[in-house]
Amino acid sequence: MTHKIAILGASGYTGAELVRLIATHPSMEITALGANSKAGQSMAEVFPHLRHLDLPDMVTIEQIDFSAIDLCFCALPHKTSQEVIKALPRDLKIVDLSADFRLRDPAAYEKWYGNPHAAVELQKEAVYGLTEFYRDEIAGARLVAGTGCNAATGQYILRPLIAAGVIDLDDIILDLKCAVSGAGRALKENLLHAELSEGYHAYAVGGTHRHLGEFDQEFSAIAGRAVNIQFTPHLIPANRGILATGYVRGEAQVIHDTLVATYQNEPFITVLPMGEAPSTRHIRGSNFCHIGVVADRIAGRVIVIAALDNLTKGSSGQALQNANLMLAEPETTGLMMAPVFP
Amino acid sequence: MTHKIAILGASGYTGAELVRLIATHPSMEITALGANSKAGQSMAEVFPHLRHLDLPDMVTIEQIDFSAIDLCFCALPHKTSQEVIKALPRDLKIVDLSADFRLRDPAAYEKWYGNPHAAVELQKEAVYGLTEFYRDEIAGARLVAGTGCNAATGQYILRPLIAAGVIDLDDIILDLKCAVSGAGRALKENLLHAELSEGYHAYAVGGTHRHLGEFDQEFSAIAGRAVNIQFTPHLIPANRGILATGYVRGEAQVIHDTLVATYQNEPFITVLPMGEAPSTRHIRGSNFCHIGVVADRIAGRVIVIAALDNLTKGSSGQALQNANLMLAEPETTGLMMAPVFP
Amino acid sequence: MTHKIAILGASGYTGAELVRLIATHPSMEITALGANSKAGQSMAEVFPHLRHLDLPDMVTIEQIDFSAIDLCFCALPHKTSQEVIKALPRDLKIVDLSADFRLRDPAAYEKWYGNPHAAVELQKEAVYGLTEFYRDEIAGARLVAGTGCNAATGQYILRPLIAAGVIDLDDIILDLKCAVSGAGRALKENLLHAELSEGYHAYAVGGTHRHLGEFDQEFSAIAGRAVNIQFTPHLIPANRGILATGYVRGEAQVIHDTLVATYQNEPFITVLPMGEAPSTRHIRGSNFCHIGVVADRIAGRVIVIAALDNLTKGSSGQALQNANLMLAEPETTGLMMAPVFP
Amino acid sequence: MTHKIAILGASGYTGAELVRLIATHPSMEITALGANSKAGQSMAEVFPHLRHLDLPDMVTIEQIDFSAIDLCFCALPHKTSQEVIKALPRDLKIVDLSADFRLRDPAAYEKWYGNPHAAVELQKEAVYGLTEFYRDEIAGARLVAGTGCNAATGQYILRPLIAAGVIDLDDIILDLKCAVSGAGRALKENLLHAELSEGYHAYAVGGTHRHLGEFDQEFSAIAGRAVNIQFTPHLIPANRGILATGYVRGEAQVIHDTLVATYQNEPFITVLPMGEAPSTRHIRGSNFCHIGVVADRIAGRVIVIAALDNLTKGSSGQALQNANLMLAEPETTGLMMAPVFP
Repeated sequence: MTHKIAILGASGYTGAELVRLIATHPSMEITALGANSKAGQSMAEVFPHLRHLDLPDMVTIEQIDFSAIDLCFCALPHKTSQEVIKALPRDLKIVDLSADFRLRDPAAYEKWYGNPHAAVELQKEAVYGLTEFYRDEIAGARLVAGTGCNAATGQYILRPLIAAGVIDLDDIILDLKCAVSGAGRALKENLLHAELSEGYHAYAVGGTHRHLGEFDQEFSAIAGRAVNIQFTPHLIPANRGILATGYVRGEAQVIHDTLVATYQNEPFITVLPMGEAPSTRHIRGSNFCHIGVVADRIAGRVIVIAALDNLTKGSSGQALQNANLMLAEPETTGLMMAPVFP
Repeated sequence: MTHKIAILGASGYTGAELVRLIATHPSMEITALGANSKAGQSMAEVFPHLRHLDLPDMVTIEQIDFSAIDLCFCALPHKTSQEVIKALPRDLKIVDLSADFRLRDPAAYEKWYGNPHAAVELQKEAVYGLTEFYRDEIAGARLVAGTGCNAATGQYILRPLIAAGVIDLDDIILDLKCAVSGAGRALKENLLHAELSEGYHAYAVGGTHRHLGEFDQEFSAIAGRAVNIQFTPHLIPANRGILATGYVRGEAQVIHDTLVATYQNEPFITVLPMGEAPSTRHIRGSNFCHIGVVADRIAGRVIVIAALDNLTKGSSGQALQNANLMLAEPETTGLMMAPVFP
Repeated sequence: MTHKIAILGASGYTGAELVRLIATHPSMEITALGANSKAGQSMAEVFPHLRHLDLPDMVTIEQIDFSAIDLCFCALPHKTSQEVIKALPRDLKIVDLSADFRLRDPAAYEKWYGNPHAAVELQKEAVYGLTEFYRDEIAGARLVAGTGCNAATGQYILRPLIAAGVIDLDDIILDLKCAVSGAGRALKENLLHAELSEGYHAYAVGGTHRHLGEFDQEFSAIAGRAVNIQFTPHLIPANRGILATGYVRGEAQVIHDTLVATYQNEPFITVLPMGEAPSTRHIRGSNFCHIGVVADRIAGRVIVIAALDNLTKGSSGQALQNANLMLAEPETTGLMMAPVFP
Repeated sequence: MTHKIAILGASGYTGAELVRLIATHPSMEITALGANSKAGQSMAEVFPHLRHLDLPDMVTIEQIDFSAIDLCFCALPHKTSQEVIKALPRDLKIVDLSADFRLRDPAAYEKWYGNPHAAVELQKEAVYGLTEFYRDEIAGARLVAGTGCNAATGQYILRPLIAAGVIDLDDIILDLKCAVSGAGRALKENLLHAELSEGYHAYAVGGTHRHLGEFDQEFSAIAGRAVNIQFTPHLIPANRGILATGYVRGEAQVIHDTLVATYQNEPFITVLPMGEAPSTRHIRGSNFCHIGVVADRIAGRVIVIAALDNLTKGSSGQALQNANLMLAEPETTGLMMAPVFP
């Protein structure tokens, strides 16, 4: 059986990545591509790397007949997404890649995003899309909220440790290094090659990055108490990749054991042998996540590091993984391609 | 039916790229990985990006039972390859990625490579592996010689034009820009990130690059007379990609028509609309080749440009395409993945 | 004696590069920085790498008292520049870095830039700023028109050969590879790191690049007849650098001799030993230009290659070199810094 | 007065950087270049970017007449350096860029470097070369030990805070991002452009990096008790730059005040306004260091970030700054060049 797929926001990087992944999916067919600002253009005009594919032209969202769609990916900007999804049929399966339905609490949403939520009732319905931890809910969900790419990376190393109670909840630091495609196709000076390629820096320093809303929500729920981590993202001169260096307090062997136990049957998450550190070069273009654990020279301190591709496992790959579950397909279908190296 | 595959030279970039591609091939199984210097190691140790795959450990070539192999890829260094292949069973299907069997004339081989050929009889048997132009011979071949990556790119734009007699054979310039993975995993100062990333330069200037042996052989055979082109490769600070800018004399529309007619049914080669130029960013990680034709302001002069990924279409993807033919599989199996962008 | 310097258009890359160079110039002092869109800001806000300097804040052009200025650099966009300069005092020494005064013929200007020139009388007065070839005129000039960065590079290899009559004037191809800072601080998708860093391509293919106006003007004037070259620029994933590969017909030794003779006393231009090719990595951040000559394997064909830094020797360094001449300072003052490598 | 300068180890990156800096120094003249493996070659052969300079050819160290040398820079590998320096005249002024004389305690040296020190008496004599904190000792020193580049960066943010007692000494984390030239011209696979340019990773994780020896020595001396920090370096796909993100406990305003007070008269160190974070793009190629302080959302936690160029302020620029002091020249001579951006 072939599922009919729509992608809204097809002209951004996550939209293009969805098309790339679905292109070789044996049981999905892209039947509608929505991109209001580019309506009327072909995908090949906007993304010439996809010119070999037989795709529908881009249309406005209003032009799409959603009754013929089995599942819709929304890769729209934050805030736009909630308004669009609010107007979509209530029985349409949706995987949203924006931030709009990640936070369950309307007050938290408003705090981090600066505006009241326009679709509070949908917010309640949405399932948080971190596949490995919400698998059953996602399989039965109508609306799944894809996680932030940084938020996913941090959670892969910290959730199991918080859940198992093996680290100090009041002393967690996440120093994250993100490649530039995480910023999307935005036209900003510091994303220009001339400015970024030999320059790197921290941004949203001091706990102002919006993905902290997800960390706070998830970690506090797991712990049954407020957990607030320190989180400093850095923009790195590379295109794809997130490397999250976590500084925690606990016993390295216990932490390693906990992560191994958590992920031993996961198809996409690999815990490296104790003492090894991952590299973004080994996961690029793939849906895999590598995690390493190293004991610090100071007893009781541990470094836990995760690497994944922000556009794949951190965003569009995760979305496809969730869509597979929602459509009762094997979870890994279309996602087992090897990383591209070099 | 699953074909049993061996890869010799699995510890180099083209070997790793073969593994990446075959990993999702539905009817091939890698049953032996040869890499003498790394024998005893797992693929995950040498190439951690392949750690999710269930692969045999690397062994010496002597340890491989070739009677259980349906097809063997040789991704060994030049000169080593001919010595290894000479010792392999004479009925084993082989796709060689080295330069050793590209030139049919032993004298030409010795001229360009500096040593007498050690397997002259095999040299005669080998079929030149430029799939689109040797498809039938490859399908029936036992030993296929993969082309040079630069040589493939140049031939895609020039072969049809020479064959059709639509360009001046005595005035062909090929200015080629090659990414660094084309140099392999060699440890040389000018391949270091610190030296290359902000530095680019021409090399093998003046007609000394060995791929000229292939150009001379092929173009002269097509034309029925000696054809010698000018060829200047440049090393560019990128990892994957070849952009070949050809300067020819003829009529742009005729040239475009000729290329369109040649490639209209080819699954991997796209001729862009007249006047458009290709970019390496649109073919990275894929088996596609984009070709553009632009008329110069000077009447009778035309620029023809091709872009492909040196490791995929220029090397390991081509090899797999040829192997598919040799094993009577559909030619495109395992090769239709979309390019990775950004 | 300290010369008082104004820079208009100080918020672009060439403006910032001027500030960088003048910062260590012993006899120049920057007393006014004009940047209408950023007026009121400090240089440190716009270019934090210049924060250690004691510079005036940016002001509108109208706010500058030009009677207190000895020389004004105009690093404004094309077309804006001619309008601004037209309104400046007629006795103010000006080095213009835009394209507005490079072409002496108003018709040629209109052909290449698409609009009638707004200051035709000044166009006549302007001296073309290719220092090594207009040294005396520049020393006595009031208004000097800085050359295009690509145009400078191409002229360094071709002017002496055309002047000496040692190459075929009807068969000159210039295949140029330009780093991205040559595109300025423009916010365009294909200048984003995510799109450029692993993608390179030809642009303005077929003879449409505006710098051809300069080549046509200069080469025809030297030859005393129309000379039209083929010129194809390529955008390369690097920040600084131009590598121009010229394909000419002549005798390599004669060509090398001609270039050596032309440049033997030039402080910034080095002709490499016969057969060596230059690299952009060896001139980055400096005012030097390296030129190499290699004979092709085809008799009578020669490859001539030049490398320089587009922002320094190709633009702001050239401008300072010209300003030194106009102010009767030693030509090399402030410009002898070594390239930055790696 | 012109000081006669020798550079031993002139064929490495720090040697080349010394030559670049000294090239425009008004009172230093390079009269000997030692590089045993390249003896007999010219600097232009080894580093073509320095070809415009009139430099002596490289010689073996034995060939240098040190009686004619006023100051000698040693940019030799660790361990080699101590053996060479031991054999040099005892009254020769020396700035050593290796790690050999950074640690005052022979046991600490042996612990971090794995071999007994071969010149223990010189070890005692050596002055630690962190200019801003050892200025007077350096001015009177004969032998100055240049600091590690990472060690310098970390100390610039932490020394004043430890000295002032404004941070918790038992909870200091330094997450450092280093560009690849910090690894020198070593031929290693993970320094190849193909492997590094899209891959980044942590190394020496868990407190095994040798620069910890310097941190331990210096911080413990300042505090008057043992201070052991956590330090995790990461290799970033850029050529020049170190960005050190420090996580400390204290009051942000006090910390900012302390840093401002410490560095207010320093020519090369700038403390940014409270809340701003530095970027490596703004210090590249220069001797400047930018420091930023940001309060975390968690009360009592502060992020302090420093950016400098590992080859300049982190190594060769520091060395020249120290040499100026040792030769009674103004400390900033030859070092006030602006950063190169973009």
